[in-house]
Amino acid sequence: MTTRQDCQALDAADPLAPLRQQMLLPPGVIYLDGNSLGAMPAATPARVQQVVTQEWGQDLIKSWNTAGWIDLPTRIGDKIARLIGAGPGEVVVADSTSLNIYKVLTAAVRMIQAESPGRTTIVTERSNFPTDLYISQSVAEQHGMRLVLVDSAEELAAQLNDDLAVLLITDVNYRTGAWHDMAALTRAAHEAGALTIWDLCHSAGAVPVDLTGADADFAIGCGYKYLNGGPGAPAFVWVHPRHADRFWQPLSGWLGHAAPFEFSPDYRPAPGIRRYICGTPAIISMAALECGVDTLLAAEPMGGMAALRRKSLALTELFARLAEERCGHLGVTVVSPREDARRGSQVCLALKPPLERASYAVVQALIERGVIGDYRAGDPDRLDQVPHILRFGFTPLYVGFTDAWDAVEHLYQVLTREEWREARFNQKAAVT
Amino acid sequence: MTTRQDCQALDAADPLAPLRQQMLLPPGVIYLDGNSLGAMPAATPARVQQVVTQEWGQDLIKSWNTAGWIDLPTRIGDKIARLIGAGPGEVVVADSTSLNIYKVLTAAVRMIQAESPGRTTIVTERSNFPTDLYISQSVAEQHGMRLVLVDSAEELAAQLNDDLAVLLITDVNYRTGAWHDMAALTRAAHEAGALTIWDLCHSAGAVPVDLTGADADFAIGCGYKYLNGGPGAPAFVWVHPRHADRFWQPLSGWLGHAAPFEFSPDYRPAPGIRRYICGTPAIISMAALECGVDTLLAAEPMGGMAALRRKSLALTELFARLAEERCGHLGVTVVSPREDARRGSQVCLALKPPLERASYAVVQALIERGVIGDYRAGDPDRLDQVPHILRFGFTPLYVGFTDAWDAVEHLYQVLTREEWREARFNQKAAVT
Repeated sequence: MTTRQDCQALDAADPLAPLRQQMLLPPGVIYLDGNSLGAMPAATPARVQQVVTQEWGQDLIKSWNTAGWIDLPTRIGDKIARLIGAGPGEVVVADSTSLNIYKVLTAAVRMIQAESPGRTTIVTERSNFPTDLYISQSVAEQHGMRLVLVDSAEELAAQLNDDLAVLLITDVNYRTGAWHDMAALTRAAHEAGALTIWDLCHSAGAVPVDLTGADADFAIGCGYKYLNGGPGAPAFVWVHPRHADRFWQPLSGWLGHAAPFEFSPDYRPAPGIRRYICGTPAIISMAALECGVDTLLAAEPMGGMAALRRKSLALTELFARLAEERCGHLGVTVVSPREDARRGSQVCLALKPPLERASYAVVQALIERGVIGDYRAGDPDRLDQVPHILRFGFTPLYVGFTDAWDAVEHLYQVLTREEWREARFNQKAAVT
Repeated sequence: MTTRQDCQALDAADPLAPLRQQMLLPPGVIYLDGNSLGAMPAATPARVQQVVTQEWGQDLIKSWNTAGWIDLPTRIGDKIARLIGAGPGEVVVADSTSLNIYKVLTAAVRMIQAESPGRTTIVTERSNFPTDLYISQSVAEQHGMRLVLVDSAEELAAQLNDDLAVLLITDVNYRTGAWHDMAALTRAAHEAGALTIWDLCHSAGAVPVDLTGADADFAIGCGYKYLNGGPGAPAFVWVHPRHADRFWQPLSGWLGHAAPFEFSPDYRPAPGIRRYICGTPAIISMAALECGVDTLLAAEPMGGMAALRRKSLALTELFARLAEERCGHLGVTVVSPREDARRGSQVCLALKPPLERASYAVVQALIERGVIGDYRAGDPDRLDQVPHILRFGFTPLYVGFTDAWDAVEHLYQVLTREEWREARFNQKAAVT
């Protein structure tokens, strides 16, 4: 069995360990919730202060030009592109994930309706994050399409047929951490004549993503999880260059115009990805996002996402194994895929009945011990099949091997001492 | 003629003058561009720092509950409601102006198409801010409606007919500062059987607005102009309670769901205005917006928007009069309406030919002297009719009578010394 000393040795030998210096985390906390809200980079407070007091407070309106505010969506987009296998000029930061799904899904549907009008289904997984489902429902209804929700990844194959217009897949599942094979699914969808949209909310900065290599069509993702951009940080959007100029998305705000400062009464979309910008961006939040993205780019000299992925796999494998070894007899099971190629950067545990009903309280008891993970309820429509989940994100940028060991030890103590019986029942769930 | 001493006396007697202490402005600057980007409240840097270092950095994911992040859209919305004649629970802060126009215009069009399907026009002014036009163009195209742009307010009457579905009007024109009569236009539109949407970007915090009194249907507005929310601050949206529950807007993101933390696969819109929230809000920018809104609420004990309006009218009247008296013979004319009831909180000047071509350079020369206004080109499609504009916003919260006097004096000197010949030609325009 792996000892705490073994983990300390792993940390000491870890070439990525110095990256943690980039983050400011509260003392005594093992933060395993970076998949919900990334930790704060040490550089962010000063940068945000500069934007507020100097760029806004002193330089005022001039900063749109002199401080480059107007270029932030493309400048940060270019940085994110390096993490997801996209080229410069192919990504913009704008709005929220929900809004960017609306943009790309509408563009994709219009493309299909213009070119393959017989196709009528938008397919996604029922276990997808709800906002993907809600936006898809809206777009389907507006465009006379049918939204099909499949119950498992295995059922996707049956949907790859002549009826399929758009396949919208979240690369890494937000609850279970299960990871799709983007290249294979994209190929299969293309062979069926459909377009693909990839939701990278739990992938960007978490696992290696190669949109270009997979020949994907559209992608969107979140700035506040593994990109460490701060609460509600703006999201990003990528469109394959072969599609970017073909249609324009319906949220045609003035900053997506080819020449916004002409103030022309007619909309003329900017060439390329810039047409996916809509209104005026929230600059203070954008500046914080840039600091977050920079913490990931700092790993480039050490091997970048590939190196982070190696550490992430080692961490999640260690945590899953220790959880089983140390807590398995207490009713703990691992819900995330054990196969490396199918696992994102998180590990989900479940508790066997009757302890399952204490899942939420166990997470609360862990939080009281300084181990911050989170709880996700079972699918309310399928409580028989999908268990309550204890979710632990492993961000290799700032989580170490000893943290993983300690987290399991805390879980062991919470369970053996039944601390969950006293855990405060704090009803509101955390934001994903 | 009013002297500088007269203006100093007006400032000394101004009961609202202490409100300026709430703002931090660079020394030596007369800031007349708060209609484009409001100045920075003194409270903002510390509040933003608290959100970043404490709420995010230390309390991490918990802050969604403990710091009330999840309630910011409605909490700030309730504060803005007090400035625009709306009730508590009727306003939310969300996304950008462009996106909120999309939401309310789509909701309005759906309502009309369900109940008065013969109506096919969306009417607005060609001189409206472009994003209003671009979004209207998109919504009209998606819903088979016709977008009609009128060339002047006088032509609106002819459009109030059986064909009219939605009248979308920007309350105070962004270029000229011309102010509509919201109550009268809403009444006329309702008599014609149509719905009204009011864009309050240049009204909220600038002029008294009474949405309830005017019986308006929908309104949206901007956080970064007179509300002093910071660059690209989130926008707001109001829907009359009689409409709020009837339809849902198409940007159905997860935070507009009735129970977002149920993670249910089916969208079920929240009751009331909360369904106009979409994705996760940009919290850091939201916190800055709240500080900005608070600077206006601080005027409530002194008479609130009515008192601010009295001062604003006195300021704009003084500036317009002085500009004519002192600079009229140099070719300066006042373009904004002189009638109080038709003027927002800004004054627009134009220069007679041949000086007109130097309009942009004159604004630059003023900026070099520390008088920050801005320039708006003539309508590129109608350069014969609409002049190049020198735009000066008067925010009674932090602009005084002596500022108005000094600004005119600077203008006089720029013109008589022909300083505009040397002004740097800085091509990119400022963001409206």
